[in-house]
Amino acid sequence: MNQQSSNAQASVILTGDRPTGPLHLGHFVGSLRNRVTYQDQYRQYIMLADAQALTDNMDDIGKVHRNVVEVALDYLAVGIDPAKSTILIQSQIPELAELTFYYLNLVTVSRLERNPTVKQEIVLRGFERDIPAGFLVYPASQAADITAFKASIVPVGEDQIPMIEQCNEIVRRFNRDAGRDILVECKAIVPEVGRLPGIDGKAKMSKSLGNTINLGASADEIRAAVKQVYTDPLHLKVSDPGHIEGNVAFTYLDAFDTDKAALAEMKAHYQRGGLGDSVVKKRLEGILQELIGPIRERREELAKDKGEVLRILKEGTFKAREVAAQTMDEVRKALGLSYF
Amino acid sequence: MNQQSSNAQASVILTGDRPTGPLHLGHFVGSLRNRVTYQDQYRQYIMLADAQALTDNMDDIGKVHRNVVEVALDYLAVGIDPAKSTILIQSQIPELAELTFYYLNLVTVSRLERNPTVKQEIVLRGFERDIPAGFLVYPASQAADITAFKASIVPVGEDQIPMIEQCNEIVRRFNRDAGRDILVECKAIVPEVGRLPGIDGKAKMSKSLGNTINLGASADEIRAAVKQVYTDPLHLKVSDPGHIEGNVAFTYLDAFDTDKAALAEMKAHYQRGGLGDSVVKKRLEGILQELIGPIRERREELAKDKGEVLRILKEGTFKAREVAAQTMDEVRKALGLSYF
Repeated sequence: MNQQSSNAQASVILTGDRPTGPLHLGHFVGSLRNRVTYQDQYRQYIMLADAQALTDNMDDIGKVHRNVVEVALDYLAVGIDPAKSTILIQSQIPELAELTFYYLNLVTVSRLERNPTVKQEIVLRGFERDIPAGFLVYPASQAADITAFKASIVPVGEDQIPMIEQCNEIVRRFNRDAGRDILVECKAIVPEVGRLPGIDGKAKMSKSLGNTINLGASADEIRAAVKQVYTDPLHLKVSDPGHIEGNVAFTYLDAFDTDKAALAEMKAHYQRGGLGDSVVKKRLEGILQELIGPIRERREELAKDKGEVLRILKEGTFKAREVAAQTMDEVRKALGLSYF
Repeated sequence: MNQQSSNAQASVILTGDRPTGPLHLGHFVGSLRNRVTYQDQYRQYIMLADAQALTDNMDDIGKVHRNVVEVALDYLAVGIDPAKSTILIQSQIPELAELTFYYLNLVTVSRLERNPTVKQEIVLRGFERDIPAGFLVYPASQAADITAFKASIVPVGEDQIPMIEQCNEIVRRFNRDAGRDILVECKAIVPEVGRLPGIDGKAKMSKSLGNTINLGASADEIRAAVKQVYTDPLHLKVSDPGHIEGNVAFTYLDAFDTDKAALAEMKAHYQRGGLGDSVVKKRLEGILQELIGPIRERREELAKDKGEVLRILKEGTFKAREVAAQTMDEVRKALGLSYF
């Protein structure tokens, strides 16, 4: 237990996901696993960013709704404890939209267009000139989410750091205009273990690329996925020396195998030749079955009572809304928009 | 009494002002006068657009707040009756910001940049590349204001027609995505009497140009203003023929003199020569003193009890919020953002 947890005024951390599909091993490594640790150290808010997910899913209304409970099941199944973490649904806290509305006055169009994350995402999503305004302004929306809860820590991927910088610019501009420190600046923390590659060897495990292993995967699905895992295409015969770099089987073992000595031994053997992919994959499959099996079982158990999941989400959202409403109230007063 | 007023389902009209300063004769001619008529014909919502006024007044927090009650006093003084019209404060209805947030997904950045009203205002306000995002997206905010109350009629100046077109594009896009008609399209009505020129002859009477006659002007202020009213610079001697076109004294008489026969006679006399500006201005002053005097007196009376004005605003805002919340609820459901 570190200093924060012994402190009544624990630091606030905000994290979350766009509920557009089931979560997978990439989420587990990049964030979920850390959240289970963070919830003992910080006051943790985990946001189901359904409103933000809509910015580029307006053509499939219903998809976001369906996935809110699914992602919540993933959270609970991996060990996020609603008694320690506050899980909230973004759209059910209107103050987040309201804060966004006011923050839009604190940021210029050209500044948003210069945001590297926004620029990159515009290319990724193929928007080009047809960028929905809601997408361009999402740094302001993200600033609203962070500041509503006065979060001082935000875990993000390397590529999201410019979003945090822009959030802090909004915070400083607001506090300067208001003449006092109402909003709190935040710090990005980038997880040590970076992005998990897809089973096909592509840099990112992603639902849209179809190269994931989901947290709800069945034993057969795990087996089939491991069979497809990209290894060393030059490693044709068992006796050939094999490569570790770019070999997804070993990348996954690095991420999940807790017996580091045995893994080092296996890597050396593979590199000098005489170790077949099937042996490596067998070890990997065993580890993934052991990791995902209990998650899947808890998930199936929890899924039997979706009413209970909704109750948890309602309670978390209600609790979070009280905090956001308090911030909104301070912001409204600072803007001179308080009358009655 | 026309058809609408005899209809229980009277058409809804939305109108309002940015509360950045006292209202003047330009407002009286262009909108206030009409609202007094409209309130007997339509379900009229009059919005004090304080949140929108902030988009370019973030450097002077407090100015907007101060002017909310001042503008409300102007409303009440000219005869807007809170029993017939619902007067509301924009910022106190968070659903308006929330609707804006979602409408941003329905409009592209390039479409906003092409909006002629936005383009013109960007030049007028000298924003150029430093456009606050809140300013670029204000057509979405205006669409939120209009649609929240399901207004089907919006009185606007000629230059604001592109805003109404953009609002209707958002409405159609939303209804199409939702698969049913939830939002209502609106129609712009442009008042017959256009813009009143400033006393200096500039095209627009405007606080920032310092060429106004305010609705709260004292008798002395009215007298002094009329003395400055721009007439015909070529009309040097009383005996000279004078020009009517561009002669602000006659433009004002056209707007306020109810004795059209006497006015026609005066114009003819002025044009053929032999009528001095002082005679014309004397008539104008008399008419303006008669028009503004009672407004000023009612205004002074009402200003004695600002608590009562705030009570009226609170009641109107509360009533309006119920309607906006109902619309927001329908919108949230249509977007699949309803869970509990």
